[in-house]
Amino acid sequence: MRRAVELAARGLGSTSPNPVVGCVVLSSEGYPVGEGWHQRAGGPHAEIHALAEAGDDARGGTAVVTLEPCDRTGRTGPCTQALIEAGIARVVYAVADPSAPGGASRLAGAGIDVVRGLLADEAAAGNAAWLTSVRLRRPYVIWKYAATLDGRIAAADGSSRWITSDEARADVHRLRARTDAVLVGSGTARADDPHLAVRGVSGAVQPLRVVIDTEAAVLRPGARVLDTAAPTLVAVAQDAGADELEGAAELLRLPRAGGGRPGVDLAALLGELYAREVRSVLLEGGPTLAGSFVRAGAVDEVIGYVAPVLLGAGPAALGDAGIATIAQALRLKVTETVRVGPDLRVTAVPATAARAAATGVSAAATASTAATEES
Amino acid sequence: MRRAVELAARGLGSTSPNPVVGCVVLSSEGYPVGEGWHQRAGGPHAEIHALAEAGDDARGGTAVVTLEPCDRTGRTGPCTQALIEAGIARVVYAVADPSAPGGASRLAGAGIDVVRGLLADEAAAGNAAWLTSVRLRRPYVIWKYAATLDGRIAAADGSSRWITSDEARADVHRLRARTDAVLVGSGTARADDPHLAVRGVSGAVQPLRVVIDTEAAVLRPGARVLDTAAPTLVAVAQDAGADELEGAAELLRLPRAGGGRPGVDLAALLGELYAREVRSVLLEGGPTLAGSFVRAGAVDEVIGYVAPVLLGAGPAALGDAGIATIAQALRLKVTETVRVGPDLRVTAVPATAARAAATGVSAAATASTAATEES
Repeated sequence: MRRAVELAARGLGSTSPNPVVGCVVLSSEGYPVGEGWHQRAGGPHAEIHALAEAGDDARGGTAVVTLEPCDRTGRTGPCTQALIEAGIARVVYAVADPSAPGGASRLAGAGIDVVRGLLADEAAAGNAAWLTSVRLRRPYVIWKYAATLDGRIAAADGSSRWITSDEARADVHRLRARTDAVLVGSGTARADDPHLAVRGVSGAVQPLRVVIDTEAAVLRPGARVLDTAAPTLVAVAQDAGADELEGAAELLRLPRAGGGRPGVDLAALLGELYAREVRSVLLEGGPTLAGSFVRAGAVDEVIGYVAPVLLGAGPAALGDAGIATIAQALRLKVTETVRVGPDLRVTAVPATAARAAATGVSAAATASTAATEES
Repeated sequence: MRRAVELAARGLGSTSPNPVVGCVVLSSEGYPVGEGWHQRAGGPHAEIHALAEAGDDARGGTAVVTLEPCDRTGRTGPCTQALIEAGIARVVYAVADPSAPGGASRLAGAGIDVVRGLLADEAAAGNAAWLTSVRLRRPYVIWKYAATLDGRIAAADGSSRWITSDEARADVHRLRARTDAVLVGSGTARADDPHLAVRGVSGAVQPLRVVIDTEAAVLRPGARVLDTAAPTLVAVAQDAGADELEGAAELLRLPRAGGGRPGVDLAALLGELYAREVRSVLLEGGPTLAGSFVRAGAVDEVIGYVAPVLLGAGPAALGDAGIATIAQALRLKVTETVRVGPDLRVTAVPATAARAAATGVSAAATASTAATEES
């Protein structure tokens, strides 16, 4: 299964709106005879690749797969049918498919020995974005920032090139390549004229570039984010006058944020992105946008590139998130720390989500319970 | 030598104003026959302990020692003499003693084979505080802070208990136990009424507690830092009216900071502490004091306890340090990252000091060269 999880990860960034899946087929004597992974949406599923490689050696053998095999005819035929036809005797899978249950019972009904749960945590972690997005019906949101050790994203005069290293910035391109969309707000669009496409990652699928320009007052034709390197979507308020952008980018008109706050309604934005089959979003905006997402409870993962630099002044990485006192702080759990060149990359997930994943309770359920207890 | 470096580290916190030193004596056949480390100022040096354990087996053998053996009669006799009398044939040491050169040549003059430089970097790192303080004639300053992932030391309403974990706070006590003095400013004294003594570390030597209360306006008899758990020194401006503190704590009167800035002259403070045999200072003050130390170029090491918590508002870990633009940023080199409970501990040293240590050039020399190049 560990090998299957590794194989699955090769699909990160190119399978959306599908999950990543890896599969290893063992012969009846227990030797690996086929491997496969889901490579791109619309292409064959992992099981089909692995069965093809195994050929007749699959008969009487075992299929080890990271996700419950599908039982439906989508853009490809059902994997259950292929496994049955190949004569597989045993299917071991890690995680149930919440989007299309029924595969396991179909296999069992055909006399196949079915085992669920092997390395479930590791396989679920590899599919965290997809599993979360299916559960919440919105994309999985990763907030990425780059800051000094004292939490600044720029110096007092606004200069920020460069706080982090070449290595860290190259790592961000790999991160972009793994996500379906990259999102910034108007502040970042104005300050940095960012490009947001993936550079230097061979074979990368370009993410959708999304700019929230609520008043349609910042982006103008000629902005780097409007070039042809990747598709771009500009989110504006329903009532914004966006004549200057018509034709230069696809416009998405959204309700304004509630409660008199500036910006667009983030839940509406995420819903629209989900409807467009975006399953993961990399939030690369500045402190204001990040604060809005934290306030909305819509950050599923935090990836901080922390440079060993001190500034003592300048804007902080995270702006107002509606947190007034320590008891309201958003508590996370560190899942990884890695040196990237001279910098650190710290990955963390909200502690409620981490607890929910460990106990099998969905974060959404936990969150609604917490809300009830508070009231 | 690796064993000798380990032995030396056992003395951290109790040998000041002396360095930490470890020694292993090998017999003429090359077997370890004696070990020792310098345990406390005024007590026997590492070599004396190791020779005592080795007894006659030292004859014709090798002494492996982390620091050049001393050749002077201080509170104990010269180690060179003891090595010669024990019949040691070979002395291998890691780092030269900048405070009292001459030991190596004395040994060589007595016909002993002397080798210098084995594992010099590791041994120097173990003695970083002492070596730096001897070179700069001021204590080695470690700035310790505890902050959220977004760099805040408290929430918007000032609440900060607790951002970091029990484990991180226990780790701070071990850090205090390794340093000679713990330093805070009046802001922290006012906000937290801190105690600053070491708790929960068996056998710890209590550090000197130092409070900078420039106007003598904050500390009053009854403050926790003025109890008898450890000695306390209160630094006030020369012209401050400190009648209320007379008798409650030892007062240190210092010139005010130059350039119209608030506070006392930090160089004068560090000089006075050095004169009192303080070789390492743990700076536990708030952002203002830390900013003053960074501005003065008087931070030799940074230890950040970073909690996986987001606040989005509240004071930053480091206040104004006179850095206006990214080119003036204080660049560090990360030397260690460790998980401490749920938190991270990040240790870093100024990049100039790291470079200087690697090339054998003193940080002071590098800094003055840089200053010349800038002017």
